[in-house]
Amino acid sequence: MTKTALITGSTSGIGFGIAESFAQKGYQIMLHGLEANGKEIAQKLAQRFNIKTHFSNHNLTNAEDIDRLIELTVNTFGRIDVLINNAGIQHVSPIDEFPNATYEKIIAINMNAVFYASKAAWKHMKNNKFGRIINISSVHGIRASEFKSAYVTAKHGVIGLTKVLALEGAPFNITCNAICPGYVKTPLVDNQIKDQAKSHHLSETEVIEKIMLKKQAVKDFIPIQKIGEMALLLAADDAQTITGTNFTLDGGWSAQ
Amino acid sequence: MTKTALITGSTSGIGFGIAESFAQKGYQIMLHGLEANGKEIAQKLAQRFNIKTHFSNHNLTNAEDIDRLIELTVNTFGRIDVLINNAGIQHVSPIDEFPNATYEKIIAINMNAVFYASKAAWKHMKNNKFGRIINISSVHGIRASEFKSAYVTAKHGVIGLTKVLALEGAPFNITCNAICPGYVKTPLVDNQIKDQAKSHHLSETEVIEKIMLKKQAVKDFIPIQKIGEMALLLAADDAQTITGTNFTLDGGWSAQ
Amino acid sequence: MTKTALITGSTSGIGFGIAESFAQKGYQIMLHGLEANGKEIAQKLAQRFNIKTHFSNHNLTNAEDIDRLIELTVNTFGRIDVLINNAGIQHVSPIDEFPNATYEKIIAINMNAVFYASKAAWKHMKNNKFGRIINISSVHGIRASEFKSAYVTAKHGVIGLTKVLALEGAPFNITCNAICPGYVKTPLVDNQIKDQAKSHHLSETEVIEKIMLKKQAVKDFIPIQKIGEMALLLAADDAQTITGTNFTLDGGWSAQ
Amino acid sequence: MTKTALITGSTSGIGFGIAESFAQKGYQIMLHGLEANGKEIAQKLAQRFNIKTHFSNHNLTNAEDIDRLIELTVNTFGRIDVLINNAGIQHVSPIDEFPNATYEKIIAINMNAVFYASKAAWKHMKNNKFGRIINISSVHGIRASEFKSAYVTAKHGVIGLTKVLALEGAPFNITCNAICPGYVKTPLVDNQIKDQAKSHHLSETEVIEKIMLKKQAVKDFIPIQKIGEMALLLAADDAQTITGTNFTLDGGWSAQ
Repeated sequence: MTKTALITGSTSGIGFGIAESFAQKGYQIMLHGLEANGKEIAQKLAQRFNIKTHFSNHNLTNAEDIDRLIELTVNTFGRIDVLINNAGIQHVSPIDEFPNATYEKIIAINMNAVFYASKAAWKHMKNNKFGRIINISSVHGIRASEFKSAYVTAKHGVIGLTKVLALEGAPFNITCNAICPGYVKTPLVDNQIKDQAKSHHLSETEVIEKIMLKKQAVKDFIPIQKIGEMALLLAADDAQTITGTNFTLDGGWSAQ
Repeated sequence: MTKTALITGSTSGIGFGIAESFAQKGYQIMLHGLEANGKEIAQKLAQRFNIKTHFSNHNLTNAEDIDRLIELTVNTFGRIDVLINNAGIQHVSPIDEFPNATYEKIIAINMNAVFYASKAAWKHMKNNKFGRIINISSVHGIRASEFKSAYVTAKHGVIGLTKVLALEGAPFNITCNAICPGYVKTPLVDNQIKDQAKSHHLSETEVIEKIMLKKQAVKDFIPIQKIGEMALLLAADDAQTITGTNFTLDGGWSAQ
Repeated sequence: MTKTALITGSTSGIGFGIAESFAQKGYQIMLHGLEANGKEIAQKLAQRFNIKTHFSNHNLTNAEDIDRLIELTVNTFGRIDVLINNAGIQHVSPIDEFPNATYEKIIAINMNAVFYASKAAWKHMKNNKFGRIINISSVHGIRASEFKSAYVTAKHGVIGLTKVLALEGAPFNITCNAICPGYVKTPLVDNQIKDQAKSHHLSETEVIEKIMLKKQAVKDFIPIQKIGEMALLLAADDAQTITGTNFTLDGGWSAQ
Repeated sequence: MTKTALITGSTSGIGFGIAESFAQKGYQIMLHGLEANGKEIAQKLAQRFNIKTHFSNHNLTNAEDIDRLIELTVNTFGRIDVLINNAGIQHVSPIDEFPNATYEKIIAINMNAVFYASKAAWKHMKNNKFGRIINISSVHGIRASEFKSAYVTAKHGVIGLTKVLALEGAPFNITCNAICPGYVKTPLVDNQIKDQAKSHHLSETEVIEKIMLKKQAVKDFIPIQKIGEMALLLAADDAQTITGTNFTLDGGWSAQ
């Protein structure tokens, strides 16, 4: 039976990379994102790997829209086997200047949407006695950086939720794990480079060398395909006992 | 100079215990909570320890109200030295039956309010070159239990925020730490005992022995006065280098 | 170029399972262990997967013997690319009755041998600008169980060493990670079941259900092939930025 | 009843500071260390605080000597209530040049001695239904730095042992916790500054600013008296439920 994976925030960056990894293994994929040409992106992926895909741009700040995203997935593909909560936004600012609305939006998309999507997928996974929830958290789910209060809060919150869902899912063959990457070269990171350059009055090159990868022992970005590989390992049928933990790919950041 | 501490959720339970500890050391205290007789509670505390107190019942689900709570503290006492984010609510339910509104409220009070209160206190602490933010998280800020998705998510989130604030506060002599208690005998826990008795179809005694303290190696509740003592240690003038970590008092729970 | 992996303690259990996984991917393998028929085991593996293998029974409690094991590997295969420190022993006893000699032996084999083997392999890996050190720690590298003082100490120690080696290896494309399994069905665990049955005066079945897997949310042993898969992911050429962390496969144990 | 504390490595540095804190609270103290004038140091402490003290220079690399140290404590003071495993040595070197004998010695003193001392004290504490074991680990018990393979391994090992002892001690009112300081100004650190200056070809001032406190957000050494205060909190009669965790005082190091 062909398995179905829904990947939020998958029209570019890490999410799209994971979509490619799962497509290559023959999964049917529900893509989701904000790119205007999302439908096209989904179609191209379908052709490239000869799989079935679909696209949605449902709004992750809205719980009802998230319900609809899950229903659309199940209606389109007959089931949802793998839910990869990947969508995320970032904002860099000292706490005393951090806009309330921006804080709320980061918490909504990066954290609350993980709760709502998991909740909506749960009954289907429970019925199927199979579910794999993979949350793309971050090294910021276990460590902090200054000026990222909302992001670090949300990413830590997701780590907590991951553990609860692992415990609740155990009797139903539903697992839940987090992947915590260090820095990956994505549009989000490109924006961070620009933002930090402003905050710290540095050139973008200096931001990469002195700030962005400062905490990594290995001065290289994490390859997106390793995140896909890690996710595939966790999504497998024989991964039922791998649950409730975080898999950190961070160039030695958290070791120090 | 007499120091001022604002303690949220301090009209009963852990918060009130912490208030007693700080009162005993001569701190001026802004009490906060939902008890109808909060004003009286504050007055009694003032008399008992011969200190200045005040009471507010500002709404922690509302960012503007939180701003007002901080302003009231500063206006009443001239400054805010110690902010103890203690207020919290709980709800126990399987993920697929967890009401959205309850999830949102737990995140708002247990997590977002910590962000808003810290943000509002920040400029005062920065000006004073002194600040001690102490977040009463929980062993659920580092470990999970089933049926507590919102609570565990929020408490983990607070651990993340604690680390960020520690980093941002370092240049200003503002520290931020979390205290993570295991089970303390409070009204909140009394309610949990009742809730879990329902969920698990057990007597309340069985809940305490078999569920509540099951994960603690020491089969005893954590004394509230030790939490107060821990908080006093962190609040001290010479505690500037103690920041960004969590102090877990949990009967051996997280060791296993 | 064919890569070489040395796996300690690989004539049975987890080590042999990892050897099978690497053999299947075409690695040359230095097997190591105490089985009397180790040479035969190595030859069979070579035939089964059409690879080159060799066997050694060098004594891991002796630093010079460990040096010889590494030299034998390099002399036999021309290089050492992957070092998997897997060998381990266990003993279960209350601290006050724990024999000193047993404590020393567990520390020597489970921890010190990891230091000596990594040290001996280091210069070869540094010269080759490639090295992958994978330490098979345990969930007991991050959590404790009673009556396992030596084992838990050693396994935590290995987690620390893993982080140091990751940092020191970063400039040379040498990575170091730990894999932390929960309970895997191996001869070592079979012995533990027997030992614990004695200590706790229970039947072996009761030990499995009530003690051994009590802390796992998923009541199943971890499949050995997933540990092999995880190790292969870490050993890959494109895994240079995955270093210094532990990958925990534990049925939800550490989440609670 | 006057309580007795044995503090290893207490003739100078952190250990002596802790001894002062406990002396001030009226504890009887068994000092231990390598200072030639240890006896004098003990006598002066006794006079200063009007308490009973004793001194031993038993060899912590030898299990039998450690047994004798515990027996001497019990014979001198009638009991042992608090055991503070503080003695430690350090050596800084890349893994491939790390002398085997130095590695073994660091493991013996920093880690194995904690096992042997706890084991020897255990039966007394069990009989008394009271014991407080406090291990002075380090931020290096939870994070790594390069060139400190032996030290980081030993300190992580101690964290593991701490958890086991907490679990085994729970039924007997024996607790075990670790304190993990960042950088404290002690003779050991003074030596590290010199060693690192050599390894990195820097001046000693540069070592402090750029290396030693580089990972701390707060650029200040941890005050010894806060470690003493923390230890007193853990040693108290009402601290029975505080066990199995580590209390990290590290200037924000581990938060990042």
